[in-house]
Amino acid sequence: MESLSERVRTTADDEHRFIHEALATVGVLNADASIVADVLLAADVRGIESHGIARLRWFYVDRMRMGTIEKRPQTAILRESDTALALDAGNGLGHPVSVRAMERTIAKARENGLCFTTVRNSNHYGIAGYYAMMALDENMIGISSTDSIHFAVSTFGAEKMQGTNPFAFAIPAATEPAFVLDFATTTVTYGKLEVYERMGKPLLPGWAVDRHGAPTLDPTEARHLGALLPLGGFGTGGGGHKGYGLGVLSEILCGVLAGGTFGKDLSQIEGPEHPGGSTGHFFAALRIDALRDPSAFKADMDRELQAYKSSRPGPGQTRVYVAGEIEHENEIRSRREGVSHLPKVWEDLDALAAELRIRPLARIG
Amino acid sequence: MESLSERVRTTADDEHRFIHEALATVGVLNADASIVADVLLAADVRGIESHGIARLRWFYVDRMRMGTIEKRPQTAILRESDTALALDAGNGLGHPVSVRAMERTIAKARENGLCFTTVRNSNHYGIAGYYAMMALDENMIGISSTDSIHFAVSTFGAEKMQGTNPFAFAIPAATEPAFVLDFATTTVTYGKLEVYERMGKPLLPGWAVDRHGAPTLDPTEARHLGALLPLGGFGTGGGGHKGYGLGVLSEILCGVLAGGTFGKDLSQIEGPEHPGGSTGHFFAALRIDALRDPSAFKADMDRELQAYKSSRPGPGQTRVYVAGEIEHENEIRSRREGVSHLPKVWEDLDALAAELRIRPLARIG
Repeated sequence: MESLSERVRTTADDEHRFIHEALATVGVLNADASIVADVLLAADVRGIESHGIARLRWFYVDRMRMGTIEKRPQTAILRESDTALALDAGNGLGHPVSVRAMERTIAKARENGLCFTTVRNSNHYGIAGYYAMMALDENMIGISSTDSIHFAVSTFGAEKMQGTNPFAFAIPAATEPAFVLDFATTTVTYGKLEVYERMGKPLLPGWAVDRHGAPTLDPTEARHLGALLPLGGFGTGGGGHKGYGLGVLSEILCGVLAGGTFGKDLSQIEGPEHPGGSTGHFFAALRIDALRDPSAFKADMDRELQAYKSSRPGPGQTRVYVAGEIEHENEIRSRREGVSHLPKVWEDLDALAAELRIRPLARIG
Repeated sequence: MESLSERVRTTADDEHRFIHEALATVGVLNADASIVADVLLAADVRGIESHGIARLRWFYVDRMRMGTIEKRPQTAILRESDTALALDAGNGLGHPVSVRAMERTIAKARENGLCFTTVRNSNHYGIAGYYAMMALDENMIGISSTDSIHFAVSTFGAEKMQGTNPFAFAIPAATEPAFVLDFATTTVTYGKLEVYERMGKPLLPGWAVDRHGAPTLDPTEARHLGALLPLGGFGTGGGGHKGYGLGVLSEILCGVLAGGTFGKDLSQIEGPEHPGGSTGHFFAALRIDALRDPSAFKADMDRELQAYKSSRPGPGQTRVYVAGEIEHENEIRSRREGVSHLPKVWEDLDALAAELRIRPLARIG
């Protein structure tokens, strides 16, 4: 773990302001820019820095400037009923359409118990957990997934055929922090290879293959010529076929069921200059009281989560965590001490501010 | 792989007859016994022998005779709406209540687009995929999960806190076999440790821990004193926290949301003499036409599945599979050549037939 003193901190409010201004400057509507800021900030505040402001330039601002994502997209309703909704995002930013999709998903679930929604022709939507967590205050269970271009080989395959395709599930408790499971269906994400290459450290087994599809621990080979592995690693011995299957499941729901892009059509190289719109998402919300009294459920959730947390730790460990707990603690710390960033990210954001002629992030502490 | 000549084969019809008779003899209603036979036979026919007739005595017949599972359970509807159903299985066999639950789930989805159902106070229900697959002919996506007693440690934990808790997803295609993903959220199931102990072979990394919660490759230590590991293996390096999170998710949906047994109350030792009723399940069905034209969807599913199957195999491999494909091929072979069993299983069934005074399985070929 890096010490806090090596990092630069800002307030959550100023980070939100910065993201909003940067996007508005390149032509994004204020309402949409504010939503993107909400989602990226949530990632940073929860300690998921790979999906926060560090992506602002490359994933969003540059694509706006190159015109590969629509600044003011025309979204369309493809199909709608009391319990389902299919949207076309018009190749806009992923976050605004996803927040609105999840809002409508929740509204329909409020009326009809549950709802399932797909979005096609969209782009990166940030952390999957953000949308799932929107259901928490409604006494609902929230679910979300997104597909992505292909970074990983299939089990027994040598070709990149699978995205990092995360799933997120958010389930409320009473006094305990909510259960928030948000995970890529690859063992690690692409950014991890980059970090290990920079550190000159060998990868762990189960993370990646080389150009031939054989396991490798070489971060440079893996990153530039190889591919990621599904959760469970190489072959079937560690359950790699399960992670592979989950990745395909995400692509079926977000790509095929959404009527969007999937399969070989998703296998392009990523970069701001490439056409957007190949990403799809899905969202679901489920009212707890359709099945149980919500207060009784949430009290039992406390007992369930406490059971894991109070269980005996393994060798060298001091705590057993439940999903979402570390992110919840990060959030409390970030709100108190500010949101911290690596000096390299900060420099990039200073350069971006100068380029866009917006006020740089204010350093605190 | 064992050669077919070492195995003993019977017809699917005779296996169904045998299971039905065995259960009826110990007091199960004919209609229920027939459903259990459907589900166990489907497992054997699809090559998932760990969940087929091999379990008949220990999981079902013995529990009936010891009275730890109710022969003629009183099931109850706890909550019901257009899109949700919560059932209490009355400590009956898991399969009959689950087939009926999934039938009602599908009927509600037919009317209202989708439905989510929980079942509490139940027992082993066999393969999760059976219930998910019931949706396939309806142009629906089917989902199912079950929890179980605890066989696995949590990430960073030394205590058994997680079941094998499988999830199953079944999604139809047009001419391709359906996508059927059915997987335990532990790296392997308990039966695998037994097989490796019998063979005297070391386990693979990521499968199990010893009595202290440290990784072990010793099948005897792991099986008798240790525990399984979640999918992704020990610690977080291989993504073990993801498999752990998925296992907890299953227990939340099948245990907490169902209003049944969960957490420390599930941590008992398994055996026919222990009280039943601690298992819960959930089921969901989703109408494809709520989101897309089903014919267009299924044609795209063919393209999606073919994309994986036609992708370049890795070193030493000849094929890339999709989830459910191997089981589908097993099913075709079993229907043609008969259902094959290990000689040891056959002997046990002969002994059971003598004990119950029912006609033994007829050997073919």
